[in-house]
Amino acid sequence: MDFNKFDDKHRMIHKKINESLLGEPKRLYDASRYLTGAGGKRTRPLLCLLSCEAVGGKVEDALKTAVAIELIHTFTLVHDDIMDRDELRRGVPSVHKIYGESTAILAGDLLFSKAFELCDSRTIKILAEASAEICEGQEMDISFENRTDVTEKEYLEMIRKKTAVLIQAATKSGALLGNGTKDEIDKLAEYGLNIGMAFQIHDDVLGVLADEEKLGKPVGSDIVEGKKSLIVIKAIEKLEGKEKDRLLEILNKKGNTRGEINLAVKLFKDSDAIRYCKTNATQFVEMAKKAINELPDSDAKKDLMKIADFVVERKI
Amino acid sequence: MDFNKFDDKHRMIHKKINESLLGEPKRLYDASRYLTGAGGKRTRPLLCLLSCEAVGGKVEDALKTAVAIELIHTFTLVHDDIMDRDELRRGVPSVHKIYGESTAILAGDLLFSKAFELCDSRTIKILAEASAEICEGQEMDISFENRTDVTEKEYLEMIRKKTAVLIQAATKSGALLGNGTKDEIDKLAEYGLNIGMAFQIHDDVLGVLADEEKLGKPVGSDIVEGKKSLIVIKAIEKLEGKEKDRLLEILNKKGNTRGEINLAVKLFKDSDAIRYCKTNATQFVEMAKKAINELPDSDAKKDLMKIADFVVERKI
Repeated sequence: MDFNKFDDKHRMIHKKINESLLGEPKRLYDASRYLTGAGGKRTRPLLCLLSCEAVGGKVEDALKTAVAIELIHTFTLVHDDIMDRDELRRGVPSVHKIYGESTAILAGDLLFSKAFELCDSRTIKILAEASAEICEGQEMDISFENRTDVTEKEYLEMIRKKTAVLIQAATKSGALLGNGTKDEIDKLAEYGLNIGMAFQIHDDVLGVLADEEKLGKPVGSDIVEGKKSLIVIKAIEKLEGKEKDRLLEILNKKGNTRGEINLAVKLFKDSDAIRYCKTNATQFVEMAKKAINELPDSDAKKDLMKIADFVVERKI
Repeated sequence: MDFNKFDDKHRMIHKKINESLLGEPKRLYDASRYLTGAGGKRTRPLLCLLSCEAVGGKVEDALKTAVAIELIHTFTLVHDDIMDRDELRRGVPSVHKIYGESTAILAGDLLFSKAFELCDSRTIKILAEASAEICEGQEMDISFENRTDVTEKEYLEMIRKKTAVLIQAATKSGALLGNGTKDEIDKLAEYGLNIGMAFQIHDDVLGVLADEEKLGKPVGSDIVEGKKSLIVIKAIEKLEGKEKDRLLEILNKKGNTRGEINLAVKLFKDSDAIRYCKTNATQFVEMAKKAINELPDSDAKKDLMKIADFVVERKI
């Protein structure tokens, strides 16, 4: 997927982000801007703008809300990194490592406030509800860390809340602001939800398989933290005997060695868990594409189709 | 001031808070509700409802936004306690002491999300702008801890943002939702801003002088943390020689003894800083009362006048 074609949209998004994050005290605003400039793909605002165009709207109609969604996304990254004690994000030190925890908490809160200052009043309830669900999903994710009996159903509900609802909010808001019909708004909401699910499952796979350099954080950090991804859940389900015991031992332990992480990855592969996740993610992509198949043809629709495929093809 | 007369309003506020904080995961919602039940005076929502009534509106017109403001206030308390490492709030352990820091951060974020789900769409910008300013004020407050040259002007700007803007948002929103005229909205906004200033200055005085039991947290904790209240600023300004040096030494030191805290309090008194703060707070109260003096007479207006006086008379 060639993201260069979205250069104009990216420029508009970037400009609006910077405009909305000007203020004093300088240190707080620097901390708030820090991650918004650190090479994110701006998937969510882009999806919002394309959804607006796909129903016949103009980019300008959805720009403020698109950027508000990116601010909410960035706010969750900043706070999640504090909770997960992650020291790297997108290959650079996380906000709390640079600015300290207090300013990082505040920078997240400020991004959240600015999102609601900025967004179109018609989309406030969509964004507020999504934000509440993100908190619920993150709490579920944390509570899963000390459990080894998390079910696939629980996992799917967790990632729906933690990841998919905000992507759904982006596509739904875009369609709403482009004056789409009720049916078009529903279809684009379903598209967003499904690529959101695919995105998170694929993200967990990348977290285990990708290069450290491409990933921007240590490979296997999810294993060390005891994160219950679909890979982990499936591997525990499919493995037996000694192999299962060994995996559980690694997952339950804090501070794994490189050798233990490598062994866990080997067990994921042996158990077929990685293949299962890839198939699962692809199914969500197919559902996403099917959801918008009946929309009138447009460049934006074609782009949304390509982005759906990209979600499970990307290496980073 | 007899707050029992507001029992009906308090019941409505309490009911709406509880309704808005129902959900799963239970642990997260328990954490979010924890402080909303712990004996707050609900000053902000009460002021919102009274401001609505003072311009001829009904309590029902402003109830959702009144409660949204209380949720925002509670969110800031939860996050502030994490940043300030405060272990007690209103006489009970703070949220992060009970639920851990991660869930406390999330509980704050959830309260914030719920506020925007709940509030009237006409008041969203008022609430969002106030929230952003609260973050700015808290960052200023933290940055003052390592300084001994904070000016009175800087302090007033800090408490305006940290405390007064949310009280202003409460009275302004109430007047707006009660369909007050532009002039009435402005007057009630000015009232809110001024009692907010008085409230914070008086709060800092109480933090030094009040009984530990009444205060619900250790007396002198502001001194230990190096907080730059108006008392501290004035005392540094007015003291000279050995006394000034001794005070600066105590303020710059972490982990003060009880004897050092008592000495600091004595120096505050000797320097006349406490009397200065009391006078200052009373002046803000007078400005608040003057701002609404021309409003048509009503029970609500009388109550707002009494609350203004109460702000600097309260012992807790």
